Amino acid sequence: MTNFNIRECAKRLSPYIIKTPLVEIEALSERAGRKVYLKLESMQRTGAFKFRGAMNYMLTLDPAEAKKGVITASSGNHGLGMSLGGKLRGIKCTVVMPVSAPLTKQNRAKSYGATLVLHGADYDEAQEYAKKLSLEHNYTYVPSFNHPAIIEGQGTILAEVLTELPQTDMVIAPVGGGGLLSGLLIAKEQLNSDVKIVGVEPVGAASMQTSLKAGQLTTLAAMQTIADGVAVRTPGNLNLDIVGRFNPEMWCIDDTEIREAQKLLLSETKLIAETAGVVSVAGLLAAKLPQEIKTVVCVISGANVDLSSLQGLV
Amino acid sequence: MTNFNIRECAKRLSPYIIKTPLVEIEALSERAGRKVYLKLESMQRTGAFKFRGAMNYMLTLDPAEAKKGVITASSGNHGLGMSLGGKLRGIKCTVVMPVSAPLTKQNRAKSYGATLVLHGADYDEAQEYAKKLSLEHNYTYVPSFNHPAIIEGQGTILAEVLTELPQTDMVIAPVGGGGLLSGLLIAKEQLNSDVKIVGVEPVGAASMQTSLKAGQLTTLAAMQTIADGVAVRTPGNLNLDIVGRFNPEMWCIDDTEIREAQKLLLSETKLIAETAGVVSVAGLLAAKLPQEIKTVVCVISGANVDLSSLQGLV
Repeated sequence: MTNFNIRECAKRLSPYIIKTPLVEIEALSERAGRKVYLKLESMQRTGAFKFRGAMNYMLTLDPAEAKKGVITASSGNHGLGMSLGGKLRGIKCTVVMPVSAPLTKQNRAKSYGATLVLHGADYDEAQEYAKKLSLEHNYTYVPSFNHPAIIEGQGTILAEVLTELPQTDMVIAPVGGGGLLSGLLIAKEQLNSDVKIVGVEPVGAASMQTSLKAGQLTTLAAMQTIADGVAVRTPGNLNLDIVGRFNPEMWCIDDTEIREAQKLLLSETKLIAETAGVVSVAGLLAAKLPQEIKTVVCVISGANVDLSSLQGLV
Repeated sequence: MTNFNIRECAKRLSPYIIKTPLVEIEALSERAGRKVYLKLESMQRTGAFKFRGAMNYMLTLDPAEAKKGVITASSGNHGLGMSLGGKLRGIKCTVVMPVSAPLTKQNRAKSYGATLVLHGADYDEAQEYAKKLSLEHNYTYVPSFNHPAIIEGQGTILAEVLTELPQTDMVIAPVGGGGLLSGLLIAKEQLNSDVKIVGVEPVGAASMQTSLKAGQLTTLAAMQTIADGVAVRTPGNLNLDIVGRFNPEMWCIDDTEIREAQKLLLSETKLIAETAGVVSVAGLLAAKLPQEIKTVVCVISGANVDLSSLQGLV
């Protein structure tokens, strides 16, 4: 078993990351009939929580590996995290994004000095290509979610939440490859907390729940969701192991619920979040929770939308 | 001289208000060449800082006055603050808004149970009408910014900023009637801080700077600005006295700069703020600041825009 240390990781990251806002949203509290706070990782550096894991990876990378330069595949936000992490640590970084990656994310990666390669229709195809390039160019291949340093970095979100709001009963998080969810679960154990951790997937890209049910890593034949940031056909095996061990509650939501949540945040609270970013709120709004859950935190994972995608909403 | 007590006021308000996020915005830090934080009063209850002053007014109101019910004039946000304050304290509240007040604000006031009256082309005309109605119906008239309880409530923003970020060198705030600016100045004195407080007005509605120069309360013959939330023809006399006594640095910005700041926040940080809300950021971006100002906080005063006004920006 890997040795995780969430408290040490939080210390290591603190000079680099933003301690993101945790803010009660009255419109959500009213709808959910309990206190609802958002953990706004949409205001994290690079616009998404993924910077935590990526920066932790860069800070713990073996110097010989760092020297070769790194390559990663990303539906967007992990690539931005690696790009900025590379810039801050002086490590050459190449990012492969699927061709459908939002322009916002593509431009940001380049602005951080990364080499951007567009390839493949989805994350898994981009990943295959990144692995191929890593062999050809002798770059260190960095997984997007299936790595202890990434998982540990994402877990620091829970440390911040519990320090600021110790009465939190439940934390709801979007699930793509499972890095955030497994990080939160590891952090819960390490911080000796009895907070409930819930993972939410789009019904059309529920690879983690499918794998859990099958009892083994399972690849979805097809995916159907507007939430490109969590559209992952195969979860990480390390993430699956951790999620399987803790066996948290997991929910599914559909695209209509995601779009509704995005619209609600925009109109009632003037918050812009990407479709993957609001999966947690969509889950909360669809859930029937027991009364003893009085304080809920939804992780808003990112804000890297192309503004043009909001045209139907304003 | 009125007895202000910012610390007591902050205690009195704390069960009711949101301690709003104070978050570094990397895109702004880069442009300004120093650390720039936003104090997101756009995430305050009712979507604007005005709730602080309004709630403080409601909490300190004489019971006999409260029983008569209150009436106020507002370009929007103060009216929302009074409406929610009235709901929370069980005080009947009537709000007069100019006919141009954003629909968002009108609907919110009604949703808090206030009686909404639309009258007049701008804040000053609405104010005249509200005073007339207060006499006709024997309602207690509540000024929008020209009252010690309102000023004291707005000042609690500085207490939060200095607690969370004691190294703050400068706080920049939008100025309409002067309630926020005078509150910050009073708070600076009471908290024994040497932070610089700067007020920013649209060049087409600079009634505070015009009055300061004239050495007396001055009413602008005409106003021209897209920032409806700070379009005030005559500042409060109480506010003018306080601002005159402390004599802070004050700047003017034009509509182009306001719109640019709104666009920048939206595209780079995915933050939605109303035109009046970004006046502080517009001021910062136009300013040439000395090097010793290393940490700046801009108050984002509100987020109550009609989403349709963003159509040109997305």
